[in-house]
Amino acid sequence: MINANSHLPYAVGVDFGGTSIKPALVQCAQIIKRGVPFDPQNHTAAETLLKMEASIRELCVDLPGLVPVGIGLPGFVDSLHGIVHGLSNVVGWDEVPVSKILSERLKVPVILENDANAMAYGEWLYGAAANTQHAICVTLGTGVGGALILDGKLFRGAQLAAGELGHTSIDFNGVSGPYGNLGCLEMYVGNHHISARALAAYAAAGVAAPTPECTPLDLCVAAHAGCKVALDLWAIIGNELGAAFANIVWILNPDVIVLGGGVAKAGDLLFPHIERSIKSRTSSVINAKLRIVPATLGNDAGAIGCAALALAAGS
Amino acid sequence: MINANSHLPYAVGVDFGGTSIKPALVQCAQIIKRGVPFDPQNHTAAETLLKMEASIRELCVDLPGLVPVGIGLPGFVDSLHGIVHGLSNVVGWDEVPVSKILSERLKVPVILENDANAMAYGEWLYGAAANTQHAICVTLGTGVGGALILDGKLFRGAQLAAGELGHTSIDFNGVSGPYGNLGCLEMYVGNHHISARALAAYAAAGVAAPTPECTPLDLCVAAHAGCKVALDLWAIIGNELGAAFANIVWILNPDVIVLGGGVAKAGDLLFPHIERSIKSRTSSVINAKLRIVPATLGNDAGAIGCAALALAAGS
Repeated sequence: MINANSHLPYAVGVDFGGTSIKPALVQCAQIIKRGVPFDPQNHTAAETLLKMEASIRELCVDLPGLVPVGIGLPGFVDSLHGIVHGLSNVVGWDEVPVSKILSERLKVPVILENDANAMAYGEWLYGAAANTQHAICVTLGTGVGGALILDGKLFRGAQLAAGELGHTSIDFNGVSGPYGNLGCLEMYVGNHHISARALAAYAAAGVAAPTPECTPLDLCVAAHAGCKVALDLWAIIGNELGAAFANIVWILNPDVIVLGGGVAKAGDLLFPHIERSIKSRTSSVINAKLRIVPATLGNDAGAIGCAALALAAGS
Repeated sequence: MINANSHLPYAVGVDFGGTSIKPALVQCAQIIKRGVPFDPQNHTAAETLLKMEASIRELCVDLPGLVPVGIGLPGFVDSLHGIVHGLSNVVGWDEVPVSKILSERLKVPVILENDANAMAYGEWLYGAAANTQHAICVTLGTGVGGALILDGKLFRGAQLAAGELGHTSIDFNGVSGPYGNLGCLEMYVGNHHISARALAAYAAAGVAAPTPECTPLDLCVAAHAGCKVALDLWAIIGNELGAAFANIVWILNPDVIVLGGGVAKAGDLLFPHIERSIKSRTSSVINAKLRIVPATLGNDAGAIGCAALALAAGS
C-alpha cells in the first residue's frame, strides 16, 4: 500500500539488529510498508547483502523506481565512507564496504549509520526531540548507549565514536567497567546490574523477590504494587542516572535528554528521580528549560532515522 | 609599529579581565600593538565603554580606518546578540548591549564572547589545538573553566553555557560544589583546594610544608626538588583530572584536550598522570590518537581569539 502523500520523498530504512534485520519503506515519520525480517546469524555478509538487496527491491516494487537506502547497524561503522568495521554480535562483517556494494547494485545512494545515531536522528527529526537544536538520546538497556545531536546535526567525534554515555563514570574510585573505567554508569544501571542489585536489596530486606530474575519489568510491576524495596531501587537508579546526565548537561547544555530502551519504560517510577537529581546538581541557567522525556518512536526510530539520513545525504 | 604583512586583515581583541582590560591590535596570531591596560573596578559600564572606545581608536591610528572588534568577558555573555547579562567580578554590567553601543560609535562590527570561548578559539586557530576538528580547552586555575570546539566551530549549547567542565562530578556522593553538584571537579583541583589538600598532606606526613600558602607553584618547586608529598599530590590530581577528562572523551571523542591556566604549568609533574588516567579509563579506539597538550598562546589567547572571532563574524 503506497501512501497518498506521494509528493513526499520515500526512502528505505533498514534496522540491522543482531538477530533480525528489518527493512521498511519510510515516508517522513511513517513506515509505509514492512519487509519480512531475516536473521544475519549463520550467514556470510555476502549472503545477507543479497537478501537485503532483494528485500529493498521488493519494498519499492510499487514505486516508479528504487529510492535511497539508509542502514543502521549495531557496531563500529564508518558512516562517512560507508564501511562496516565490525558488528557487535554478528561475525563476518569486518571491513565490509556495504555502501559501495549495495549502491553499485541498486544504483541509489546507500548510507550507513551506527544504530544509536540512527535512532537519535529519528527521534530528533520526528519524535521526542523534534524542534530542538541540542538533543542527547540515551538507550537504557543491557548496555547504556547514547547519541548526540548538536547544533542541529548528528555529532560523531574524531573516530566517529562519540556519545558513549554508558561508559562515563559517576565514581572515579568505583567498580571497573568493560573498558577499565572505574564507576562506569553501565555497571550501575545496565539491565543485568539492576537485576543483581534488586536481588541483593530484597535479600538484605528479608523480603522475597518478585521473580527469580528480578528484571527491570518485574521491578516496575512490584513498585506499582507498592513494594518499598522496588520503589527505593528506582529512586537510587534515578539518582545515579541524574548524576551522569548532570555531567552531560554541564558539558553540553542541551535542550532535551531523550530516554529510550527497556529501563526507560519505568516511566513515572524513574523520571521524577532523574529530574530531581539533575536539578540538584546543576545551575538554574542550564536546567530551567531542560526537558527529560521518553522516546516516542519506539522500535521504529532506527528505520525512520536511517531513511531520513539517506534522504538528507542526497540533498 | 604596523606589521609588514599588510595584506592580512587586522582586528582589535579586547581581553576584559576582572581587574584589567587589555586591548590589542591583532593580525592573525600576532599582537601588533598593545593598548594601555585599564581597570574596570570602581567605574560605571558607561565610563569603561568610553575608555574602551578611546583605546580602540588609538590602536587603529596608523591604519587607514577602524577595524572589527572582539571582546572576551568573564561572565554570562550573549554572543549572538552582543549583550552582557552580567560579569563574574565586576558590578554594573547587567544587561548591557555592548555590541550595539560600541558598533554604533565606531561604525565597525563589535562582537562579544565568553572569555573561555575566546581563549579556546585562539588556541584552536593558532595555538595548541590548530588543525583539529574537535578540541576541548580547559583552564585550570582558581576555577576550572572549559570551552568546546566541535566540528570546527565553537559549541555554546542551548543557553550558551556549555563547556563548564569544572562543575562536572567525578564522585556522585562526593563533597558539594558551588551549584550543589556532589563531587564536582573544582572541589578537587581548583587552586585553593589543591593548597588545602597539600597542607593537609604535609601535616599528615609530619613534613613541613614548603610555604604557609602551599600554592600550586610552591608544590611544583617542592616536587622538582624531590619532595615525595608534592610528587604524590600531583599524581593524585592527575588521576582526578584524568577521570573527569575520560568522561568528556567518552561523550565527545575529541582530537585534543588543551590545558591552560596556572595549574597546567605543573607540566611534566602532572601531564603524564593525566594521560595515564585517561588511557586506563577509555577504549583504544578513542584514546589512541587523543592528545593532551599545554596551551601555547598564554595570556594572549583571549585577545587573539576575540580578534579572530570578530573577523570571522564579518566574513
